[in-house]
Amino acid sequence: MHTLHVDLGERSYPVYIGRDLLSDPALMGPHIHGNQVVVVSNDTVAPLFMDKLRTAVGERSLVTEVILPDGEAFKTLETLNGIFDHIMADRHSRTTTLIALGGGVVGDITGFAAACYQRGVNFIQVPTTLLAQVDSSVGGKTAVNHPQGKNMIGAFYQPQAVLIDTNTLQSLPPREFAAGLAEVVKYGLICDEPFYRWIQANAAKLLAREEAALAEAIERSCACKAAVVAADEREGGIRAILNLGHTFGHAIETAQGYGNWLHGEAVATGMLLALEMSARRGSIAAAEVDAFRELLVQMNLPVAQPADMSPAQFLDLMGRDKKVVDGRLRLVLLAAIGEAQIVDDAAEAEILALLESFPRGT
Amino acid sequence: MHTLHVDLGERSYPVYIGRDLLSDPALMGPHIHGNQVVVVSNDTVAPLFMDKLRTAVGERSLVTEVILPDGEAFKTLETLNGIFDHIMADRHSRTTTLIALGGGVVGDITGFAAACYQRGVNFIQVPTTLLAQVDSSVGGKTAVNHPQGKNMIGAFYQPQAVLIDTNTLQSLPPREFAAGLAEVVKYGLICDEPFYRWIQANAAKLLAREEAALAEAIERSCACKAAVVAADEREGGIRAILNLGHTFGHAIETAQGYGNWLHGEAVATGMLLALEMSARRGSIAAAEVDAFRELLVQMNLPVAQPADMSPAQFLDLMGRDKKVVDGRLRLVLLAAIGEAQIVDDAAEAEILALLESFPRGT
Repeated sequence: MHTLHVDLGERSYPVYIGRDLLSDPALMGPHIHGNQVVVVSNDTVAPLFMDKLRTAVGERSLVTEVILPDGEAFKTLETLNGIFDHIMADRHSRTTTLIALGGGVVGDITGFAAACYQRGVNFIQVPTTLLAQVDSSVGGKTAVNHPQGKNMIGAFYQPQAVLIDTNTLQSLPPREFAAGLAEVVKYGLICDEPFYRWIQANAAKLLAREEAALAEAIERSCACKAAVVAADEREGGIRAILNLGHTFGHAIETAQGYGNWLHGEAVATGMLLALEMSARRGSIAAAEVDAFRELLVQMNLPVAQPADMSPAQFLDLMGRDKKVVDGRLRLVLLAAIGEAQIVDDAAEAEILALLESFPRGT
Repeated sequence: MHTLHVDLGERSYPVYIGRDLLSDPALMGPHIHGNQVVVVSNDTVAPLFMDKLRTAVGERSLVTEVILPDGEAFKTLETLNGIFDHIMADRHSRTTTLIALGGGVVGDITGFAAACYQRGVNFIQVPTTLLAQVDSSVGGKTAVNHPQGKNMIGAFYQPQAVLIDTNTLQSLPPREFAAGLAEVVKYGLICDEPFYRWIQANAAKLLAREEAALAEAIERSCACKAAVVAADEREGGIRAILNLGHTFGHAIETAQGYGNWLHGEAVATGMLLALEMSARRGSIAAAEVDAFRELLVQMNLPVAQPADMSPAQFLDLMGRDKKVVDGRLRLVLLAAIGEAQIVDDAAEAEILALLESFPRGT
């Protein structure tokens, strides 16, 4: 087992990475203060892992299990309210601990529930998808979606601990696994060129879900994320680089309906758009864009925008993103492979031209 | 004009108290960063004061006005979602400022909207009821109600400034004014005996809404609140004394349906129960309980519990309050007039006996 630390003063917490962590009471126990627990999961993940988690939670005076329907479409205020209904019905007090067992949707909504219930209770992240393990479970961003924009309603709220059990990835459907790889690649692109080159060299091993390669990829991804979050917890500046590909990607997700494109898939295509734009600006070589496209293809990730989105609609949806500051669109591009930069000088014409020439799906 | 300061490090902010502050751009302007404003009010308050507030806000690139239906019954996640719909439709960015123009419900829900929109934007409190001016607008507690419990879903989130225009109180309906006086009295009871004696001596002036008496009462109330909040922002300890009468009061509000008893009315009766319990424990003289009851009667505040609540139901609802910690009910009582104490040793039998002997309404 490896342990990373997210350094945020009194809000610091450990990230544990390893095999079979899920059922270990010695790891989980010290992070549950009080004697009440709420486990939130979904109807795909719970049948696989809830029994193991129960072992880790152990005997408590009050344990409530809330099983959500699976999918991004349910990351709503309405689902959140349903979680509160369960917690209230069982009368959990301010000393209860919420545990998120699942992917990014479960983690984001459970974290937000913990941030709001009685104005804040403890929570623990137990991410079971690659995307959640390398990205959403670390850093304290919690949220639900609004029909007109993703993650528009939420809070910065840090967990007590993150438990990453790499075994859970063996049962992940191929499409979700690939979507998670997109975020792994992101960390290489934005802050660690050697890691990016390592990913290019080890893509086959990652796709084969070889244990050692997976553990290495998760640890290096989380280390990058932890460093960025420690430097800028509430996204006043540098943290925004974690959004490489996300402003493009959120537009795709919003237009297609949440869940039709997986988040990681939309981010993959969004990153390809960002790299293409970076190349047009002369920051990276065109050959790097081609190599990146090949990597995405190898990983079974989409490399074309949706056929039914016009450039005008795409741009309109980008304008609703949280990264808009006082009417100016802020984009994360690359200054080089392994080095992100934030730009706010992108003209509408530049983005429209990019979208018009970018391949469309069939 | 008087200015108090709530000292919370980088989250510190001023509380302005005086006449005609509402329409003063020089006071409001420096607290609006960026060029976008959302004013949230209700259909009672907006016709009275929105025009004045517009003067204070001045010319901005984007101003959205959201008018809620009036009343505690609308302090829900559903209403909150409606606020987000307006803000999203007009595409407010992370640099927008929310302004709460109204009483406690508008302030609490607007503050919570500000805490959650894009994970946190700025907001300004412009309380127009006595209760909001002396209590809910200061201190950063924001929330909405859950059908099974008041203020169960919320956040600690501090405003940029609080503007208290004492003129607004002249148009307040008598019942709401009296409900606000209950919270004024509370500050005397929990932390300032001389202030409590002053209130007893000046009750008639307060009821007549004499300007000087009102300003004095508001300032001393806010000073007490600011000091308590500065000592314990997130209610880890001492801040709980602000809840004198509230655990009893919330049970009444929940049983009667939000809005049928005003919050201040329920707190008045709740404080009377707390004082009676304190007297039974020997902390204060029985004569003080009688004098307090007379003060409440003079202020047209209720001094009897609802006729249709059984002691068992009352106790059950108290058990759902946020003040329950690991199954133990925590109550705020008085150690003396002007000095609160928190107790967690109240047996169910003691509370049931108190409720059984306490007068009931007709």
